[in-house]
Amino acid sequence: MAKIAVLGYGTVGSGVVEVLERNADSIKNRAGEPVEVKYVLDLRDFPGDPIQEKITHDFNDILNDPEVDVVVEVMGGTGAAYTFTKSALEAGKSVCTSNKALVAAHGAELMALAREKNINYMFEASVGGGIPVIRPINESLTADKILQITGIMNGTTNYILTKMRREGTHYEETLKEAQALGYAERDPSADVDGWDACRKIAILTSLAQGGTVDFNDIQTEGISDITYVDFKYANKLGVTIKLLATSKVVNDKVYAYTAPFMLESDHPLYNVNGVLNGIYVNGNMVGDTMFFGPGAGKLPTASAVCGDIVEAVKNKDHNVIVVWEDKKVELGDNKDLAFKYFVRVKDEEGEAKKVRDAFGLDVQPIRVQDVEGEFAFVTEEMAESDFVIKSKLVDLIKSIRFDDTAMVE
Amino acid sequence: MAKIAVLGYGTVGSGVVEVLERNADSIKNRAGEPVEVKYVLDLRDFPGDPIQEKITHDFNDILNDPEVDVVVEVMGGTGAAYTFTKSALEAGKSVCTSNKALVAAHGAELMALAREKNINYMFEASVGGGIPVIRPINESLTADKILQITGIMNGTTNYILTKMRREGTHYEETLKEAQALGYAERDPSADVDGWDACRKIAILTSLAQGGTVDFNDIQTEGISDITYVDFKYANKLGVTIKLLATSKVVNDKVYAYTAPFMLESDHPLYNVNGVLNGIYVNGNMVGDTMFFGPGAGKLPTASAVCGDIVEAVKNKDHNVIVVWEDKKVELGDNKDLAFKYFVRVKDEEGEAKKVRDAFGLDVQPIRVQDVEGEFAFVTEEMAESDFVIKSKLVDLIKSIRFDDTAMVE
Repeated sequence: MAKIAVLGYGTVGSGVVEVLERNADSIKNRAGEPVEVKYVLDLRDFPGDPIQEKITHDFNDILNDPEVDVVVEVMGGTGAAYTFTKSALEAGKSVCTSNKALVAAHGAELMALAREKNINYMFEASVGGGIPVIRPINESLTADKILQITGIMNGTTNYILTKMRREGTHYEETLKEAQALGYAERDPSADVDGWDACRKIAILTSLAQGGTVDFNDIQTEGISDITYVDFKYANKLGVTIKLLATSKVVNDKVYAYTAPFMLESDHPLYNVNGVLNGIYVNGNMVGDTMFFGPGAGKLPTASAVCGDIVEAVKNKDHNVIVVWEDKKVELGDNKDLAFKYFVRVKDEEGEAKKVRDAFGLDVQPIRVQDVEGEFAFVTEEMAESDFVIKSKLVDLIKSIRFDDTAMVE
Repeated sequence: MAKIAVLGYGTVGSGVVEVLERNADSIKNRAGEPVEVKYVLDLRDFPGDPIQEKITHDFNDILNDPEVDVVVEVMGGTGAAYTFTKSALEAGKSVCTSNKALVAAHGAELMALAREKNINYMFEASVGGGIPVIRPINESLTADKILQITGIMNGTTNYILTKMRREGTHYEETLKEAQALGYAERDPSADVDGWDACRKIAILTSLAQGGTVDFNDIQTEGISDITYVDFKYANKLGVTIKLLATSKVVNDKVYAYTAPFMLESDHPLYNVNGVLNGIYVNGNMVGDTMFFGPGAGKLPTASAVCGDIVEAVKNKDHNVIVVWEDKKVELGDNKDLAFKYFVRVKDEEGEAKKVRDAFGLDVQPIRVQDVEGEFAFVTEEMAESDFVIKSKLVDLIKSIRFDDTAMVE
C-alpha cells in the first residue's frame, strides 16, 4: 500500500483524489500496489465532505509521517509550494506536480535533489494538461537531437482565438465569455499575455536541450492585440491565428518565443481548436511527431498527475534520470530568425508605392469587407531584423508572423 | 561504456548503427554513458564497409560476451528471433526490438522473463514506427482505463489509399507504384490484407488491457477490395477511406478489428496522409489524446529502437514494469457493435423500394459520374448483426463502415 499526500484541494487536487478513487483497481494493477490518499493539505475545512477526515492544516503532519511515499504538489505558485517540495524531497518523498511556475523556476535544482535522494520529482501535468509530452521527450525521443518544439500550449487563449475566428467576435467580449465559463481567470494576464505558454516552452526546451532555459529570456507576446479585423483578413487568406510557443535549433543555437502566428491550412496545428492543445516535436532522426489532447481541465490534468504518481510508486527507490542541468541555455537573438509576415498598413496616398519600395515586391493589396482606410499584404520570408527596418518605411498598423511548420508525409 | 549487439543488418539494423553514431554525444548524455555497437550479427559479410569489423555470424559470440548489456533484435520473424531473444534475456541482457510479429506472438512470455531477470524487453518501435506510443500507454496514461485505441498504423496502405484518393488511381497500379518506390513489399499481403495493423492493435490492446490479445482473434479486413469507384463516392460525400485498427471497451467487453473505414472531415485521423501514422487513444479520465508521426522508415524506426536502448542502458538492473500478463483477453463479438454504413447496390428496377423496405428510411440515392448500373446510400447507425440481415434484402455490391471517433474540444 502506497500512501500519498495531496497539497491543495483545489480543482486539480480534488481531481487527483477523484481519479485515484474511481480507477483504484486499475491503478493498483499498474502501480503494483494500492495507492491511497492519507492526507490532504488545505487551509480550508470541508465539513460534510468525506475528504474532511484526511484534511490537515499542518504540512509537518505529512513531512514527519514515514508512511507517506509520494507528495502531490498542486497548490501552484513558487512560495510555499517551493518550500514544501524541497522539504518533501529532502525527507525522501517523491513529489509529483502540475505546477509549471515552480518547475520553470526551480526545475533543475529540484530534480538534482530528487536524484541525490534516489527518488523522483515528476511534472508531466505541468505542460499540455493530460497529453503525455514530458515523458515522450524525456524517455522516448532520447536518441534524437530535438531541433524544434512548436505548440499550442494554452487552452484559454486557444478557446478565445477559436471563438473569434468562428464567430467573428471581438476580443474583449470573447474573453469575458471565457471568464464566465471558467475557461479564463478573473485576472487573465498569465494566459492572454503569453506567460503561461512561455513557461511551458521553457520547460520543454530545458528538457530537450538538457540545460536550463530562463523563461524571462523568452520573447513573449500575447493575444490581447488580436482583433476581429485580423480574423477577417485571416479568413480571406484561408489561414488561422494561433498563439504558438516555439523553440528551435538553428545553426547550433537555440531560439525561443511565444507569439500569435498565422497558420496555413496544411499546418499540423491548424485544426487544434477550443481548449485542445497540440505539440509538434521534430527530432533529427525521427522527423516530425505530434501530440494532441486536452490541455487543461480537472480530470485530464489529474490524469497526468496520477500517471506520475503511478510512476513514482513503481520507482520508489529508483531515480528516473532526467537530463536537465542547472547550466543555463543561452538563447539566440530572435532578430536572426526569418518569417513571412502579414502586414496591415494605412491606405494613404502613395502607400502602395511605399510598400513596393520597402519590400521590393509586387505586393497584392488584400482588402476585406467593411474595413476602410487600410489594406494588408503578405511578405516573402525575410529576416526579422530586416523586417523591423522595412516596416518603418510604411504606415504600419500591425504585423503578424507566419509559422511554416510542416509535416513530411 | 555500454556495449550493444545488433541482430540483423537490414534497413532498421543499419539505421540503429547510424543513429548511435550520428547522435553519439547526446545519447551518451541521455544514457549516462557512451553507447557502442560491439557486434552486428548477420549472415552476410560487408567487405569494405566499416561495419565489417563488428560482423559476426555466430550468436554465441554475443551471448557469451559479458560486456554486452543490450541486444537489439531487428531480424524480424518468430523463429531465430524468438530463440535469440529468449537466450539473451536468460543471459541477463536486455533486448530492444522493432519486431511486432514476435511481440504480438510472445510478448507476455518475454516480458515475464525480463522481469524475472530484472532487466527489460522493450518494443517501442514495434508500433507506430518513430511515434512514441508504447511508452505513453505504458508509463503515462497509467491512471486511466483505456476505453478506445484507433489508429492508422500501417504506412504502406495509408500511402496507397492517400494516392488513390488524391489522384483517382486504381488499386493495382497504385500498389505497383508503392512497390517500385519501396513503400510496399514484393509480397504485400502482410500490409494490404491488414495483418500488420492487426498485430499492432493486438500489442497496444494487450498493453492497455493488461492481458494478452491473440491477434488471430481480431477480425481483419484489408484494403485490396477498395476501388477508385469507392473513392469517387467518398469524394462526393466529402469523406476519406482509411485502414483503421481499433479496440474499444463497450459494456466492460473488449472489441477489436482492423478494416477500411470511411472518415468524415472532422475525424481526428482524417488528415493523416501518406506514410504518416496517427493513433487516437481515449482514457476514461484524460479523454481524447492523439499521437502522430512517421509510421515507418529507416531512421524514424531506428530512433524508436535507440530510444529503447537508452532506456535499457539507464535501467540496467531495474525492470521497468509493464503490465501485460499471459492471461488471455477474450474479445467480444463484433456483431454487437454499431456502425453507420456506406452501401453500394445494383441499380435495378425496384431497388430503391428494396432499400427503403430493408433499411426503413427515406434513402437518398447517391450517384457519381461515369459509374453506371449502381447507386449508393448511407445508413443510420445500426448494429452490425442487424446490418448483416438487412443487407441481404438488397442487391449489395459492397459496404464500408463509418468510424465516428471525435475529439471533444
